[in-house]
Amino acid sequence: MSDYPSIVLEQAVNQMASLPGVGRRTALRLVLHLLRQSDSDVQAFANAFARLKTEIVYCRECHNISDSELCPICGSPRRDHSTICVVENVQDVMSIENTGQYTGVYHVLGGVISPMEGIGPKDIEIDSLIERIAKGDVQEIILALPTTMEGDTTNFYIYRRIQNAELPEMPKLSQIARGVAVGNQIEYTDEITLGRSIVNRTLFAVN
Amino acid sequence: MSDYPSIVLEQAVNQMASLPGVGRRTALRLVLHLLRQSDSDVQAFANAFARLKTEIVYCRECHNISDSELCPICGSPRRDHSTICVVENVQDVMSIENTGQYTGVYHVLGGVISPMEGIGPKDIEIDSLIERIAKGDVQEIILALPTTMEGDTTNFYIYRRIQNAELPEMPKLSQIARGVAVGNQIEYTDEITLGRSIVNRTLFAVN
Repeated sequence: MSDYPSIVLEQAVNQMASLPGVGRRTALRLVLHLLRQSDSDVQAFANAFARLKTEIVYCRECHNISDSELCPICGSPRRDHSTICVVENVQDVMSIENTGQYTGVYHVLGGVISPMEGIGPKDIEIDSLIERIAKGDVQEIILALPTTMEGDTTNFYIYRRIQNAELPEMPKLSQIARGVAVGNQIEYTDEITLGRSIVNRTLFAVN
Repeated sequence: MSDYPSIVLEQAVNQMASLPGVGRRTALRLVLHLLRQSDSDVQAFANAFARLKTEIVYCRECHNISDSELCPICGSPRRDHSTICVVENVQDVMSIENTGQYTGVYHVLGGVISPMEGIGPKDIEIDSLIERIAKGDVQEIILALPTTMEGDTTNFYIYRRIQNAELPEMPKLSQIARGVAVGNQIEYTDEITLGRSIVNRTLFAVN
């Protein structure tokens, strides 16, 4: 006999436990929590996931998650469409949006180049980025990829691809500042970050 | 504009974050994980929860979660139906089953008496327990409720109810042993547990 008194219960626990970081004991606790909710609440819970794959699309411009062919950011006339910020994933778009410091548009790669994980340039949205740039009207590309080996590799690959693209006009290419995080103590900052933050120091803007 | 690039995404995140102990950031991570799975996998995930409330029933004898009117334990001729172990919830049944030490049947109260949380005797399955006992054929009731104030209150309430039930034959009433957990150091055991374990010491069975 199975450990579970019900196959329906067991299947729900199996599904919950398939999520990353959710163990079987936690999964059981979550499913029993759902079981105590009203019929309509549990139906709403199930429906929200049933709709995920059928209704979510990816923006044809920036490849961000969207409800329509063009995401709200790419569709907005109030955004600066001549500046493209290149990010790894959807969460990064949300994080940058939350800063309120960026008014341009995005390009979501959907990953970074990682030979270790078998992710090459063709597996992420780099070709579509080059096409977007080749259309013209792009003034600046801001690379906001993770400050890891994979992020740096991807940065360099994109840089070379733009160089080789024989564009009529070369856009500016920048990457987000790296250095000591705001609020961090100098003594607890790792050596590489601290070393770079000295090399790449910024001048006070003296009026 | 919402923080999320898609309303469908936001609704799935809201549902995931409605689970106890799941924050919004974790919820987003889990939903994006689902979004990377195949259509059929995500459909299976949603279906498992859609079936929860419609297909799960409670055993008419022991009130455990079940796929049919009688749960596999109550329906088994190999279990001792004259011994009833009273537990708080479904997880407790599974824990005791996992020990492999119990061959009787269960009675799932679905909670314990807790005046603080407004849970009275009528809110849990005590009446049905007394009815089960009144039918006769029950030799022993084992109370396996949590060793908390609420558990003790419920133990005492059940004891009084059985006393007052004017049964033709009084079943044995026991509670699971309380004491120092196996593998625990004496010095780290709390005073109340250690005190009780001395008072309720068990004699060596000398042959």
